[in-house]
Amino acid sequence: MIRVSIVGASGYSGVYLIQALSSRPDVSISVITSNSNAGKKLPDFSPLFAKKNPENSLLSEIVFSLFDADLIAGSSDAVFFCLPHNESSKLMPDILKKNKDVKIIDIGADFRFDDLSIYEKYYGKHGAPEMNTDFVYGLSDIFYNKIKNSQFTANPGCYPTGALLPILPLVFKGCIDFSSPVIIDSLSGISGAGRGLKTQNLFCEIENSAKAYNVWSHRHLPEIKEKIEKAFLNSPAKQDKFMPDVIFTPHVIPVSRGILTTVYLKLNEGISRKNIAGIYENFYFGSPFVSILDNIEDCDIKNVVYSNNCHIAFEMREEDGGGSMVKIVSAIDNLGKGASLQAIQNMNLMFGLEPDFGIPQYSPYP
Amino acid sequence: MIRVSIVGASGYSGVYLIQALSSRPDVSISVITSNSNAGKKLPDFSPLFAKKNPENSLLSEIVFSLFDADLIAGSSDAVFFCLPHNESSKLMPDILKKNKDVKIIDIGADFRFDDLSIYEKYYGKHGAPEMNTDFVYGLSDIFYNKIKNSQFTANPGCYPTGALLPILPLVFKGCIDFSSPVIIDSLSGISGAGRGLKTQNLFCEIENSAKAYNVWSHRHLPEIKEKIEKAFLNSPAKQDKFMPDVIFTPHVIPVSRGILTTVYLKLNEGISRKNIAGIYENFYFGSPFVSILDNIEDCDIKNVVYSNNCHIAFEMREEDGGGSMVKIVSAIDNLGKGASLQAIQNMNLMFGLEPDFGIPQYSPYP
Amino acid sequence: MIRVSIVGASGYSGVYLIQALSSRPDVSISVITSNSNAGKKLPDFSPLFAKKNPENSLLSEIVFSLFDADLIAGSSDAVFFCLPHNESSKLMPDILKKNKDVKIIDIGADFRFDDLSIYEKYYGKHGAPEMNTDFVYGLSDIFYNKIKNSQFTANPGCYPTGALLPILPLVFKGCIDFSSPVIIDSLSGISGAGRGLKTQNLFCEIENSAKAYNVWSHRHLPEIKEKIEKAFLNSPAKQDKFMPDVIFTPHVIPVSRGILTTVYLKLNEGISRKNIAGIYENFYFGSPFVSILDNIEDCDIKNVVYSNNCHIAFEMREEDGGGSMVKIVSAIDNLGKGASLQAIQNMNLMFGLEPDFGIPQYSPYP
Amino acid sequence: MIRVSIVGASGYSGVYLIQALSSRPDVSISVITSNSNAGKKLPDFSPLFAKKNPENSLLSEIVFSLFDADLIAGSSDAVFFCLPHNESSKLMPDILKKNKDVKIIDIGADFRFDDLSIYEKYYGKHGAPEMNTDFVYGLSDIFYNKIKNSQFTANPGCYPTGALLPILPLVFKGCIDFSSPVIIDSLSGISGAGRGLKTQNLFCEIENSAKAYNVWSHRHLPEIKEKIEKAFLNSPAKQDKFMPDVIFTPHVIPVSRGILTTVYLKLNEGISRKNIAGIYENFYFGSPFVSILDNIEDCDIKNVVYSNNCHIAFEMREEDGGGSMVKIVSAIDNLGKGASLQAIQNMNLMFGLEPDFGIPQYSPYP
Repeated sequence: MIRVSIVGASGYSGVYLIQALSSRPDVSISVITSNSNAGKKLPDFSPLFAKKNPENSLLSEIVFSLFDADLIAGSSDAVFFCLPHNESSKLMPDILKKNKDVKIIDIGADFRFDDLSIYEKYYGKHGAPEMNTDFVYGLSDIFYNKIKNSQFTANPGCYPTGALLPILPLVFKGCIDFSSPVIIDSLSGISGAGRGLKTQNLFCEIENSAKAYNVWSHRHLPEIKEKIEKAFLNSPAKQDKFMPDVIFTPHVIPVSRGILTTVYLKLNEGISRKNIAGIYENFYFGSPFVSILDNIEDCDIKNVVYSNNCHIAFEMREEDGGGSMVKIVSAIDNLGKGASLQAIQNMNLMFGLEPDFGIPQYSPYP
Repeated sequence: MIRVSIVGASGYSGVYLIQALSSRPDVSISVITSNSNAGKKLPDFSPLFAKKNPENSLLSEIVFSLFDADLIAGSSDAVFFCLPHNESSKLMPDILKKNKDVKIIDIGADFRFDDLSIYEKYYGKHGAPEMNTDFVYGLSDIFYNKIKNSQFTANPGCYPTGALLPILPLVFKGCIDFSSPVIIDSLSGISGAGRGLKTQNLFCEIENSAKAYNVWSHRHLPEIKEKIEKAFLNSPAKQDKFMPDVIFTPHVIPVSRGILTTVYLKLNEGISRKNIAGIYENFYFGSPFVSILDNIEDCDIKNVVYSNNCHIAFEMREEDGGGSMVKIVSAIDNLGKGASLQAIQNMNLMFGLEPDFGIPQYSPYP
Repeated sequence: MIRVSIVGASGYSGVYLIQALSSRPDVSISVITSNSNAGKKLPDFSPLFAKKNPENSLLSEIVFSLFDADLIAGSSDAVFFCLPHNESSKLMPDILKKNKDVKIIDIGADFRFDDLSIYEKYYGKHGAPEMNTDFVYGLSDIFYNKIKNSQFTANPGCYPTGALLPILPLVFKGCIDFSSPVIIDSLSGISGAGRGLKTQNLFCEIENSAKAYNVWSHRHLPEIKEKIEKAFLNSPAKQDKFMPDVIFTPHVIPVSRGILTTVYLKLNEGISRKNIAGIYENFYFGSPFVSILDNIEDCDIKNVVYSNNCHIAFEMREEDGGGSMVKIVSAIDNLGKGASLQAIQNMNLMFGLEPDFGIPQYSPYP
Repeated sequence: MIRVSIVGASGYSGVYLIQALSSRPDVSISVITSNSNAGKKLPDFSPLFAKKNPENSLLSEIVFSLFDADLIAGSSDAVFFCLPHNESSKLMPDILKKNKDVKIIDIGADFRFDDLSIYEKYYGKHGAPEMNTDFVYGLSDIFYNKIKNSQFTANPGCYPTGALLPILPLVFKGCIDFSSPVIIDSLSGISGAGRGLKTQNLFCEIENSAKAYNVWSHRHLPEIKEKIEKAFLNSPAKQDKFMPDVIFTPHVIPVSRGILTTVYLKLNEGISRKNIAGIYENFYFGSPFVSILDNIEDCDIKNVVYSNNCHIAFEMREEDGGGSMVKIVSAIDNLGKGASLQAIQNMNLMFGLEPDFGIPQYSPYP
């Protein structure tokens, strides 16, 4: 039995973890924390957990508590952190003092960067810089080998997950002509903004809305960029004179969940459609969650919502013989593959389980 | 291993059955039929079933076939029918000739009525009237004992499920003053109309829309009425001079899934809020899917969508001492509790399993 | 030129007034007040008013100001109040002291009730009880004659507008059998809740939502009831032994705007479909905004949204010969006919203009 | 009085024309044609035109007719064509034979291209190539002078309108470094697909959907490209060695109306934020419909929907000194500015009226 605790369990990703883990026969939930809901049982927190008769679900009796490092350390084999940035890094050391073997999956941003100076430029002072190198970047479908052997995993951001799964395999293989920028244009559901009370997230503001935001300054840009650069420097193309230039534009559209990402890339001369298809096929051979679709119009967030799946499709500019432009589209659920379900995939890997163990396979219809 | 087949598997309820049953270790899917998709594998039918590498899911290889009574009879312990009315009744006898023990759950309307004359008034000539008495009405959370012992179950309509779960317990206990009509006002998501191509179901027509339809003639009215009358005639109130009068108004609102039902009832003198609460508590003691909520505003389709749950809440008119009016609200997912998941609950009961075995417990957030 | 001011001009109904009045050649906007936006020009308040080159619209230069009774009194022929209840009644006397002829249209609740004790039960202490009898109830399509001759109009609530337009003509004519309650079941868009920041109004909470609220206690119930009772006591049926009993249930559904109201009525013996049709035809002969539709499914909020129109359709229970049940459905835009456009219709009447002067006639498609 | 006829009047853009023109005191509608609705009065076509008492609107009596060149020629000063491509060009010559002075605004694609060979590559054989040079391209806010003097105007496509309004001024001024492609990423509401019955446009398919389509082959790409190239060849930069390369990706998102366009451009060295702002300000000085916003997040389709406005905002990459990347976002209503209202703006120009005469100025709130 894997005993798990969830710190910051009352937001969208925390609740999703509770729900997804509760059906696992091999997992028991020990502690769930929420400052604003401490003392509340789940059925009193939300009708999503409405009590049934007889109280057939153990969840009915679980109570949100304040953060208590001792309690968590003593009752957990794994701890998920679902906190705003700069918070998890301050709390982890206390837990580790009491339980040096506890595995940690951080859904927040604190340990996603190799380069702490970039982190601090975008997020402010880091709470536990000495722990930073202990973490592996939890993009499960790519870095599964590292994750399997790690005690600490930094779950990627939602936009980076949707962008890096289609891009990184091509970087590793040296296919991209970086004399042109990599342009990443993403559409996100509103849940990406969390449950915060902002006028701009009201139904009346969003229903007929579509807009770009933080067009040059979104915090997920440096995360995406660092991972592409790192892959580039480990690729056969590392001698090229151009370092990758990454441009990222997030938009919000009127859906609750999902991220659709359209990537514009220039390919090196000689790279054909068949090459790209082959790279993806080889790379994601073995992946239970990444699918390469033939038809770019099928790459639709409705086909991955509420799942841990990532759909990818691409199309090259027909007229081009040589170094062609390619458009690649990916679709994920920002809270599933982009947060909680990828976190569970990471937990599975860290505990030696199959990556897809206990994770739902399909999106609803409709 | 329960071997199941699904006849009419390419509509919303058929696909939902495929998805929900595919995760069950104790169930194998034998045959799925679809006239319009015969020959197609699931990944070619919809990107919802996009193939992954390695082909880790057996579902990737399942092929839609034309209806073949012999094939189904030979390979199935249970058959689900998801067909338009008057179709399943014509196909069942052929299967039963070859396999007299096969259990059948019909999601269509053919066997929902005790009184065939009412059925034929609303649906046309019945295809197998001789089988009608073999079927039990599959409102699982109420008639579970009969269903457990039945080979044949007629899954209720979606509106009747949302209306009868809150109403029937009060009829059984003789609480309702039938000198006033029972008024049932329901709001449904568009998926209730199926995948048919109609202008009125286009996004542009529905997005800003809310309307009533079939206000005196909806086919679910006689179904609801028959079940209330039958319960009344088996209740202590059966001597009352008023037979139940049932008024039902369906509306469509701009959601894909879900039914919210508001019921207006007059209670007999002396019936208090505490009485009603007690009746529900006793009645649904043991139900893993029906919850009675304290706050009527929590009774919201968003809290039950994609689940087999039914939430019920009620509020009495404050000023009344004696025979008061009560408003009862229920929320279900029309495709889950109102179709496919209740069908699986029925299958569980018919095979001696716990009713909630292998059925997801929670709605997503958000 | 009619000089108008708008007190509380930054909410949904205030902005709608600004927009709708700005295209009128016969109207000039003098003062618009907003405590939270005082000092801001319209283009700085919202991109809806984005400045164009050249500044072709006078609106670009209008500035929100704090409330100033002298300023408004000196520069206005008419004042619209769009304030929370109990606020307008405190501000009006100061304006009237300086300008005793100014016409007032109050979109808030303060002067909607004949019986102040009912008002105070639901809304708290009234700010200017001595002015209450000066006001006429501004349900324009019914009380236009009184409104024409009044200096003071209390614009009805949104739900009452949608309920009373179909009900009152039948009360006036004594058609309703009040031994059964009048049941009013309404579905409203979220804008009815205003722009307030509440978690329950976030996009993620509303998108898949439908729920009832304030099921016995909504403030619009006593307003609807008072107007039905008053009409009853002025009708040929006033001797009947039953006083009207009114039951009202508001729901919210995932649309920004619109109210669909379904009314359940018992008709007196002998009242036929033709009678009802005739009553409506006579009653709304001359109304530029109320249409009686043949098909109840056409009575859809999408057909009236962004307009001042009210669509009404009805259908009687077929089997009944004598005192039959009838269902009546009405559709309005809660901010148009239910607030700002009806207020302008009232202004037109109060200034001797045609009621539909300068009011847009059609809803968009789609 | 301008007598107008509308050929193909029952689709979204035809109905919008009827509605928008009906409120004009200076316009009378003569003939409206619709093959599928011939013989129907407007109130029988849609409840949007529900008849009121007294029949105060002339629109209640207008009847859809089959196309009749004589009738239209004899009764029209202007004719709008709202037809699928290759249809209007076949019908126009017959009208012109009878009335050589009639002004024509074609909302379809037939006359949008200078280069007929490109047209025929994308749309098939042209119906009246001899008329092609008679038409001016009706991008009103840019080509108003030509339009004023033209008898024939080809209304631009919806995507081209949203893309060209922000891009062309910068091309004219030679600001763009065309060594990098111009990347245009657009999000469109579903009404852009018209009222056709396709499964992919059902509410259940669109509600949770976002996807790209026709990613290299959309028919609006060559239209955008031709206009950029032509502007380039008339610009000071025409000697540059790079011809413009244009990449365009359309997406559909779950809104009925609106197009948000994000443009990625490389600027020539030395072009500053101030330069761009100045170019837009000068260029759109005098435009009653184009606004340049300071904040890119305000550039939201909700702020322009149901209007003829185009909002534009831009932001440069901060770190760049020299030839910087700029992101420009524009928002329009695809049926308003992208079709019918721009067509009316063109009509105004062609009849010597102010461009904004009789065109609504504001989007609703909310």
